[in-house]
Amino acid sequence: MLSYLCLIYGVILISILVIIYLAKYTFSQDKGTDKMQEISNFIKEGAMAFIKRQYKTIAILSILALFLIVFCNYLGNLSKGSSSAISISIHTGIAFITGAFCSALSGYIGMYMAVNSNIRAAAGAKKGLNHALQIALKGGAVTGLAVTALSLFGVASLFLVYGGISGNDTLIKEAPSLIVGFGFGASFVALFAQLGGGIYTKAADVGADLVGKVEAGIPEDDPRNPAVIADLVGDNVGDCAGRGADLFESTAAENIGAMILGVALYPIFGWKGILFPLVARAFGIIASIVGIFTVKVKDDKDDPMKALKKGFFITSLLNLILLFFVVKNMLSGTLSNGSTVNYLYLYGCVFAGIFLSYVFVLITDYYTSINRKPVKDIANSSQTGAATNIITGLSVGMESTALPVIFISICIFVAYKLGDLAMPGVANSGLYGTAIATMGMLSTCTYILAMDTFGPITDNAGGITEMSGAPEEIRVVTDRLDACGNTTKALTKGYAVGSAALATFLLFSAYLDEVKRILDKPLDSWFAIDIGKPEVFIGGFIGAMVVFLFSSTAIRAVGRAAQYVILEVRRQFNEIKGIMDGSTKPDYASCVDIVTKGALKEMILPGILVVFTPVIVGILLGKESAGAFLMITTIAGVIMALFLNNGGGAWDNAKKLIELGEHGGKNSEAHKASVVGDTVGDPFKDTAGPSLHVLIKLVSTLTLVFVTLFK
Amino acid sequence: MLSYLCLIYGVILISILVIIYLAKYTFSQDKGTDKMQEISNFIKEGAMAFIKRQYKTIAILSILALFLIVFCNYLGNLSKGSSSAISISIHTGIAFITGAFCSALSGYIGMYMAVNSNIRAAAGAKKGLNHALQIALKGGAVTGLAVTALSLFGVASLFLVYGGISGNDTLIKEAPSLIVGFGFGASFVALFAQLGGGIYTKAADVGADLVGKVEAGIPEDDPRNPAVIADLVGDNVGDCAGRGADLFESTAAENIGAMILGVALYPIFGWKGILFPLVARAFGIIASIVGIFTVKVKDDKDDPMKALKKGFFITSLLNLILLFFVVKNMLSGTLSNGSTVNYLYLYGCVFAGIFLSYVFVLITDYYTSINRKPVKDIANSSQTGAATNIITGLSVGMESTALPVIFISICIFVAYKLGDLAMPGVANSGLYGTAIATMGMLSTCTYILAMDTFGPITDNAGGITEMSGAPEEIRVVTDRLDACGNTTKALTKGYAVGSAALATFLLFSAYLDEVKRILDKPLDSWFAIDIGKPEVFIGGFIGAMVVFLFSSTAIRAVGRAAQYVILEVRRQFNEIKGIMDGSTKPDYASCVDIVTKGALKEMILPGILVVFTPVIVGILLGKESAGAFLMITTIAGVIMALFLNNGGGAWDNAKKLIELGEHGGKNSEAHKASVVGDTVGDPFKDTAGPSLHVLIKLVSTLTLVFVTLFK
Repeated sequence: MLSYLCLIYGVILISILVIIYLAKYTFSQDKGTDKMQEISNFIKEGAMAFIKRQYKTIAILSILALFLIVFCNYLGNLSKGSSSAISISIHTGIAFITGAFCSALSGYIGMYMAVNSNIRAAAGAKKGLNHALQIALKGGAVTGLAVTALSLFGVASLFLVYGGISGNDTLIKEAPSLIVGFGFGASFVALFAQLGGGIYTKAADVGADLVGKVEAGIPEDDPRNPAVIADLVGDNVGDCAGRGADLFESTAAENIGAMILGVALYPIFGWKGILFPLVARAFGIIASIVGIFTVKVKDDKDDPMKALKKGFFITSLLNLILLFFVVKNMLSGTLSNGSTVNYLYLYGCVFAGIFLSYVFVLITDYYTSINRKPVKDIANSSQTGAATNIITGLSVGMESTALPVIFISICIFVAYKLGDLAMPGVANSGLYGTAIATMGMLSTCTYILAMDTFGPITDNAGGITEMSGAPEEIRVVTDRLDACGNTTKALTKGYAVGSAALATFLLFSAYLDEVKRILDKPLDSWFAIDIGKPEVFIGGFIGAMVVFLFSSTAIRAVGRAAQYVILEVRRQFNEIKGIMDGSTKPDYASCVDIVTKGALKEMILPGILVVFTPVIVGILLGKESAGAFLMITTIAGVIMALFLNNGGGAWDNAKKLIELGEHGGKNSEAHKASVVGDTVGDPFKDTAGPSLHVLIKLVSTLTLVFVTLFK
Repeated sequence: MLSYLCLIYGVILISILVIIYLAKYTFSQDKGTDKMQEISNFIKEGAMAFIKRQYKTIAILSILALFLIVFCNYLGNLSKGSSSAISISIHTGIAFITGAFCSALSGYIGMYMAVNSNIRAAAGAKKGLNHALQIALKGGAVTGLAVTALSLFGVASLFLVYGGISGNDTLIKEAPSLIVGFGFGASFVALFAQLGGGIYTKAADVGADLVGKVEAGIPEDDPRNPAVIADLVGDNVGDCAGRGADLFESTAAENIGAMILGVALYPIFGWKGILFPLVARAFGIIASIVGIFTVKVKDDKDDPMKALKKGFFITSLLNLILLFFVVKNMLSGTLSNGSTVNYLYLYGCVFAGIFLSYVFVLITDYYTSINRKPVKDIANSSQTGAATNIITGLSVGMESTALPVIFISICIFVAYKLGDLAMPGVANSGLYGTAIATMGMLSTCTYILAMDTFGPITDNAGGITEMSGAPEEIRVVTDRLDACGNTTKALTKGYAVGSAALATFLLFSAYLDEVKRILDKPLDSWFAIDIGKPEVFIGGFIGAMVVFLFSSTAIRAVGRAAQYVILEVRRQFNEIKGIMDGSTKPDYASCVDIVTKGALKEMILPGILVVFTPVIVGILLGKESAGAFLMITTIAGVIMALFLNNGGGAWDNAKKLIELGEHGGKNSEAHKASVVGDTVGDPFKDTAGPSLHVLIKLVSTLTLVFVTLFK
C-alpha cells in the first residue's frame, strides 16, 4: 500500500510544482496598457466582491447544514441501534465541512486565476495568437490542476485518517462510507456556487444587453454601458468559480462512489480495489499535464480549436496507456472458485469510458457548431422571426438529448457486461465495471477543466481589448480565441453532463450498499428498487418533477435578477449626465453590487428545494422510494441538462453565424430574431443547465448521507 | 350478469337517443346569412378533404400494423409453447382493427358535428348568448356522447363475444387480455389523428399569422388571407378529431386495464370485478347527460364559463352519488380469511379520483387564466421584449408541473392504501384501488369531452362572424364564447393528462399481470421492475429520452409544414392581383391542400418513433426493461405534456391580456413580444402536448400487445 500512497502524494506534489510554475509563467506576463489594467481591475474587484459575499452566504448555509447532518446522522444511527452513532456522525460532519471548504477553495482558485490571466492574455495578443493562447490555457491549467489535485488530496487524506492507514480490514472497509460527507459538502457548495454564479452571469448579461443593445442601441462590451463590467465579472463567477466547484465534486463523488464499490469487492481485490480510483486519478493528472504542454499553434492563421482538440486526444491516449498498467497491477485477484480475474475485460471498461467522453465531445460539437446543420437550421428559421427561431432552437435542444442518452446507455451496458465477464458470478462485479468506465471518462478531467477555464479567460480578454480600444490586429486575435473559448465551454458542459450521469449511476449503487448495510443484509445480496410499487413510482415521479421545478426557479431567478440590473442601468442613463457621449463614466460598482445582491438572494429558493425534497421523500416514503427519486432525478436531470445546454449553445452560435454575414448579417431582421434566441438560451446554458449537473450529484450524495433517517 | 348487461346496453341506447335528439336540435337551427354559409362551406370542405386523406393514410398504416401484430403475436405465443397461438393472435388482430375503426369513427363524428355546429352557433348569436351557448355545447355533447358510448359499446361487446357471455370462468378471465388489441388499435389511430391534426392546425395557424399579420399587416381571420380557411379547418381537425380519438382511447384503455386487474381479483368479486368498470362508465354517461342539460346562462351579461363549471360540478356530484350504489352492489365479497370487503374504502377511491379531476381543473385554471399571477407575469415580462416573454413563459410552464404531479402522487397513494385497507392481505388490492380512482376521474369524461368540442365550435363561430362582417353585437357574443372556449380547451387538456397518468398506472399493472401469465407465475405473485439493474435503468433512460425526441419531432414538423403554408401565401399575394384590395378572392383550397399534404407527411416520423422504440427496447433488453421504459415514459410524458400545455395556454392568454389593453394594448411593443410567445406556444399546446397524452397510453397498450415477443 505504501508505494501506491507515495505515488498518489507524489503526483499531488508534482501538481503543486506545476501549478507554481504555470502561475509564475502567467503572472510574469505583460499586463498591457493602463487602460487595460483599469478595466481589468474593475473586473477583479467586482469578482472578488461577489465571491466574498457569496462565500459568506454559503458559509452560513453550510454551517446550518453541518448541524443538521451531524444531528440527523446521530439520530438515524442511534435509532438503528448503532453503538458508534456519535463517532459516525462526527466523522461525517468533519468530512462534510472539509469537502465544502475544498470545493469553495477550488472555485476561488479558478476565479482568481481567471481574473489575473484575462488581462495578460489580452496584452499577450500583441505577440501573436500562440502567445495569447499559451497564457489563457496555462492560466486555465492552474485551475484544472488545483481542482483535481485538491480533490485527490482531500479524498485520499480523509480515507487514510479515517482508517485507511490502519492496516485493519474492518477499518479500511468502513472508511469509504465515512467520507461520503466530503462529497456531500463539495456538492452542497458547488450547487450554490454554480447557482449564484450562474444567476449572476446571466442576469448581468441579459440586463446589459436589453438596456444597452436594445434600448440605448450601443454595441456589446461598450464602456458606456453601466452593466458592462458586471457582465464581464459574470463570466468569471459563473464559468470559473461555478464549473470549478462542479467538477471538483464530480471527481470527488466519483472517487467515493467507486471506493464504496471497492469495499463490496474486498474479498477479491483487498484494499487495492478501494485505492484503485485514487491511483487512476493520479495518473490522469499526469496525462493531462503532458497534454496541456503539447498545445500550441504554429502561426496566427492556425486553428486554436484544432490545437486544443489535439491536446485532448493526446491526454486521452496517454490515459489509455497508463491505465492499462494500473488496471493490470491493481485489479487482478483470485475468485472464490479459484479462477483469476480477467483484467483485460476490466481494461475494456476504461476504454468504454474514454470512448464515451470522446463521443460526448463529438455530439456536443455537432449540435452547437456554427457550420453544422442544427445551428444552420436555427439561423435559417430566424428569417421568419423570433418565434420560429425559438421553436427551432427548442426542438434542436430536445433532439440533442437522443444520441447522448443512447451512448451513455451503451457505455453502462457494455461496462457492466465486461465487469461481469471479468469476474463471472461475483456480486457487484458488473457495477464495478461501470465504476471503472467512469474513471476512464474522468481521467481527462484535468485537461477538460483547463479548457473550460480557458473560455472565460479569452472571453474577458476579448472584452478588455474591445473596451480599451486596442488596435484591430489585437482584437482579431482575441476574437478568434473568444470564439474558440465559446466552443470549449460548450464541449466541457457536454462532458460534465456525461460524467455526472456515470458518477450518479455509481453513487446509486453506493446508496444500495448503504441500504444493505443499514438493513444488515450481506453486501452481495440484492436490494430491489421496484418501480411497480406505488410509493416507488411516486418517488420517481416527484424526482422528475423536481428537475422541471428546479429549472423553472433557476430560469426565473435570472429573469428577476436581470430586472434589478435593467432598472439600475436605466436609472444611470437617466440620472448621470454625459454617459452616452462618453464624458462621464457610469457607476460600474453599483451595478456589480446590485447583481451580487440579486443573485445571492435568488439562489436560495432553488437550492433549498433540491436539498429538502429528497430528504422529505425518503422520510415519508422510505428508502426504496428515495432510491427511485435518485434514479429518475438523474435520468430527467441529465436529459434536461442536455436540452438546456445544447439548445442554449446552438442559439448562441446561430446568432454568431448571422453576425458573420448569413441571412443579412448584423442588424438585419434575422439578426434581431437570433438575438432573442440567444437571450433565451443564456439562462438555459449558463444557469439552469450547469446547475442541473450539480443537482443530480448533490441528490446522490445527499441521499447517501441521510439514508439512516429514511423509513 | 344479465341485468348489468341490460343496464350497459340500455345506457348505450339512451345515449343514441340523446345523440339523435341533440343532433336534430343542432341541425334544425338557423344557418345564418349566405356569406356565413359560404365561409362555413369552405371550412367543411377543407375539413372533410383533410380527414378523408388522413384516414386513407392511417388505414394503410393500420393494416400494416395489423399484419405485424397478428404475425408477432403468433410468433411470440408459439415460442412460448402456447397451443392457442393462432386463436390468440387472430382475436387480438380483430380487436385491434375494431378499436382502430371505432377510434377513427369517434374522430369523424367529432369533426362532423363541429363543422356543422359552428355556423349555427354563429347565426344563433343573434338570439343572444344563451342560444349560441346551447348550440355550441349541444353540438359538442353529441361528440362527447358518441365517443364514450362507442367506447363502452366496443369494449363491452368484444368482452362478451370473446368469452364474457360464456358463463365459463376460464373464458371470462381470459377475455380481458384478448381485447387489449382494442385499446392498442384505438391509441394507434389516436396518435396519428392527434399528430396529423395537431400539425395541421398549428402549421396553418403559424403560417397564416406570420405572413398575414406580420408581413402583410392584415388582422386575424381576415378573408384576404389565403390561409385563413386552412386555419379555421385546423381547429376542427386538431381539437375535435384529435381530442375525440384521444379521449376515446383513454376511456377504452382505462376500461381494459381495470378489467384485467379485475381478473386478478376474480376469487373475490367474480365477474362483477371485471364488469364494474363498464357499469361505472355507463352511469358516468347518465350523469354527464344530466350535467349537459343543466348548463344555461340567464342573460348576455352572465359568464358562460361559470355556467359550464356549474354543469361540471353537477356531473361530478351526480357521479359521486351514483357510483356509491355501483360500488356497494358490485364490489362486495368475502375474503379467503372470511372477512368481508369494506366497500366504503373502495368508494373512497372513487372520491379520490373525482377529487383529482377537480384539482386538475383548478390548477390548469390557475396557470392559464387571464387574471392569475402566471399569465400576468408573462404579460408583464413582455414589456422588456420577446426574450423575456419566452423565458417567463417557459419557466411558468415548467413550474406548472409541480402541483399536478404532487396531486397525482397523493391520489395514487391514497387510492392504493384504501384498496389495501378494503381487502387487507389480498394481492393487487391496492392496485384495484387505483383502478377505481381512475374510473372516478374518468366518470365525468363525457361532459369534459362536450366542453372540449365546444372550444373549436365557438372558435370557428367567432371566425365566421368576423369573416362575414357580421354586426358588432353578434361579434361580442361570439367573442365571449370564443374566450370561454379557449379556457375549456385548456382545462380539458389538463384533465386529459391527469387521466392519462392514472390510466397508464393501471395499464402498467396489467402489463405486470401479462408478464406473470407468460412466465407462468401466479397472478398474486410479484414481478419486480428493479431500476437498479443496468438494463432496466437503460430502458427507463431511453423512455424519458423518447419523450423529448418525440416532442422535438412534433414541434419541428409544425415548423416545416408551416413553411409550406408561408411560401404558398406569399405566392398568392404576389401572383394573384387584387387580393389585398378585396376585389379577388384568394385560393383557399390550395392552401388547405398544401397543409393537408404537409401535415400528413410530417406525422409519419414521430409516429414511427413511438411505435418502434418500445418494441425494440423490449426485444433487446427484456420484459423488465420494457416495463421501466413504460413507467419512465409515463413520468416524463405527463410532466412534459403539462409543461407544454400549460406553458402554451399561459402564453396564449398573456397575449389576450395585452390585447385587452394591458401594457399598451394591441400593436404595442409588449403586444408584439406576446405574439412571439403565443406562436411558440401554439405547437406546444396543440401539437406536441396533446400528442404526448396519446403517446403514453399508446406505449402502454403497445407493450401489452407485444409483450410475448420480449426477451
